[in-house]
Amino acid sequence: MPLSVLQQLQDEMLCLPGAGCSLMEMSHRDQAFIDILHDAENSIRSLLNINDDYAVLFLQGGATLQFSMIPANLIRGTDKVAQYLVTGAWGKKAVGEAKKEGNVEVIYDAKESNYNHVPKAADYQVRDDAGYLYYCSNETIQGVQFQEEPESPAGVPLICDASSDFLSRPLDIRKYGMLYACAQKNAGPAGVTVVIVRRDLIDAGQPDLPGYLNYKNHAEADSEWNTPPTFAIYALGKVARWLVDDIGGLDAMAKLNQEKSQLLYDVVDAHGDFYQGHAVDCCRSKMNVTFNLPSDELLKKFVSEASAHNLASLKGHRSVGGIRASVYNAMPLEGAQTLAKFMTDFAKKNG
Amino acid sequence: MPLSVLQQLQDEMLCLPGAGCSLMEMSHRDQAFIDILHDAENSIRSLLNINDDYAVLFLQGGATLQFSMIPANLIRGTDKVAQYLVTGAWGKKAVGEAKKEGNVEVIYDAKESNYNHVPKAADYQVRDDAGYLYYCSNETIQGVQFQEEPESPAGVPLICDASSDFLSRPLDIRKYGMLYACAQKNAGPAGVTVVIVRRDLIDAGQPDLPGYLNYKNHAEADSEWNTPPTFAIYALGKVARWLVDDIGGLDAMAKLNQEKSQLLYDVVDAHGDFYQGHAVDCCRSKMNVTFNLPSDELLKKFVSEASAHNLASLKGHRSVGGIRASVYNAMPLEGAQTLAKFMTDFAKKNG
Repeated sequence: MPLSVLQQLQDEMLCLPGAGCSLMEMSHRDQAFIDILHDAENSIRSLLNINDDYAVLFLQGGATLQFSMIPANLIRGTDKVAQYLVTGAWGKKAVGEAKKEGNVEVIYDAKESNYNHVPKAADYQVRDDAGYLYYCSNETIQGVQFQEEPESPAGVPLICDASSDFLSRPLDIRKYGMLYACAQKNAGPAGVTVVIVRRDLIDAGQPDLPGYLNYKNHAEADSEWNTPPTFAIYALGKVARWLVDDIGGLDAMAKLNQEKSQLLYDVVDAHGDFYQGHAVDCCRSKMNVTFNLPSDELLKKFVSEASAHNLASLKGHRSVGGIRASVYNAMPLEGAQTLAKFMTDFAKKNG
Repeated sequence: MPLSVLQQLQDEMLCLPGAGCSLMEMSHRDQAFIDILHDAENSIRSLLNINDDYAVLFLQGGATLQFSMIPANLIRGTDKVAQYLVTGAWGKKAVGEAKKEGNVEVIYDAKESNYNHVPKAADYQVRDDAGYLYYCSNETIQGVQFQEEPESPAGVPLICDASSDFLSRPLDIRKYGMLYACAQKNAGPAGVTVVIVRRDLIDAGQPDLPGYLNYKNHAEADSEWNTPPTFAIYALGKVARWLVDDIGGLDAMAKLNQEKSQLLYDVVDAHGDFYQGHAVDCCRSKMNVTFNLPSDELLKKFVSEASAHNLASLKGHRSVGGIRASVYNAMPLEGAQTLAKFMTDFAKKNG
């Protein structure tokens, strides 16, 4: 979370300006909260240039619940086939849940390369009658990211788990049937998931679905079908405002994220005999820079010395190993510079 | 939310003591957050005297998702019948969702009296082989509350939606198979639901359930199967600590809630020709005091004049009409005293 947003949350904790009480003491039906929810929605619409063909919903349950909700709404009880591109751990989990709901085909799986890349359009074939084409735009554990959208035939909705790169760069929402993201990487605190869904897809859910899992209920009630996570939505709205007002929109944010990640990749490339990057060049994530060191001993030393420089949370996931340096939106350029300098010094001393 | 808790949240917003960053910048896997989660759990265990036969889970999706999760885990795919007591709007909603998952019988419905009471044990008959017996302990819209638990035969788990009176009074958890509550009435901010479930019931969920809906996943991962709503859990933990340290436990809290609600009921009774209480005496809620006025005109005048006295959110739900005065845990005695005095004055002037 950006420091200026945390400061606003702090200032307004006891009394929301104009409301006479804390946001946390307010009913979700109060006009003051409804205004906050609409403001958050409008900031997202403005940042991503989303028109009224799409609903913007604020839900609970994280990406994990979306793994089930998407197939439960779009293919359950039909003979449609949902097709998935698997480029890492999150795509794999999504497939696991989807298989419980209907017919699923994995049409690309980067498993053999230990998920170090994303496919080109020529690498997979989407059926013209697929229920949808699903992918995860950025895989946090592997540090691979789609630089542009996969291609799906006309009539096949493209569905994207953008949990870890939402609001980190501009995109053309008209290419998507649905794009969703849990907030906690770039957009706000844990506890709220933003779902941007084309209105024609909302009506697909059947009445026998658990009510909470039916997009229609949430869309018709403007995300107030039941009590929404009010504080998380309020904080997310502040982050979206920060992106609009302080950063200057998603082009500027993308430029900054490119700069931050490039600083780190440059060190990896300059010391290619010491650091081994995980992702192949064309698929490198602007959010999660993943690389390994020559030995487990040096890896431990790297994490420990980095920690002494206030560089935390660097240890990679066990399935990939090595280091994962995350440079999400709220990480300032100075943070990436400090890490890049530390990496250079460390390679020189230990290489 | 108690003022002292809001002040703590404010103080710790930029930097959680000992953590070096804001709670909202922390991974849910960080030991500092895991300690916060365990502390919240332990405070709840201590307040309600819950032993290890029960899991305490922190979930998302509110009571609404529980309406589906309970039957999806306990009766879906079996020939078991779930039996429901319906004493107001929330019980009715729970039945609607349960019917999608399996066999459901409503064995008591207070509809004919417009939900002004709860049943006595003699008023309903629970099957010995029922999947479970379900009820809502406090109906917020109608202002009726069970003063003691319904009776269920040995072997039939009692399941309670305690969303609006959780942590407002002591209870004997051993009488329950499961008790759950969304936090936003007495226990914290919106966005987290506490589920206290006997461990033998956790294993009932079948593998074809959407993963998020399976209690087993959450229990095995200690509420970290996916990213939990970290800030809401942290705030809930502070409220639970406030109940332990500042209030002195649930006996003291119950006494205070009894006192606050009685102040209002006393005015209703003293002006019985002016105020008409909705709930029958024996079933009056200690959380939501519901009553009507002699005319719509007087009702409007009451709400408007109360608002000028900083007494807000008094309008009842349209299905019951009239006034609903909520005196949840965080409402101080002085708040109830101010409202009682206003009610007395209003009756004298307009009666």
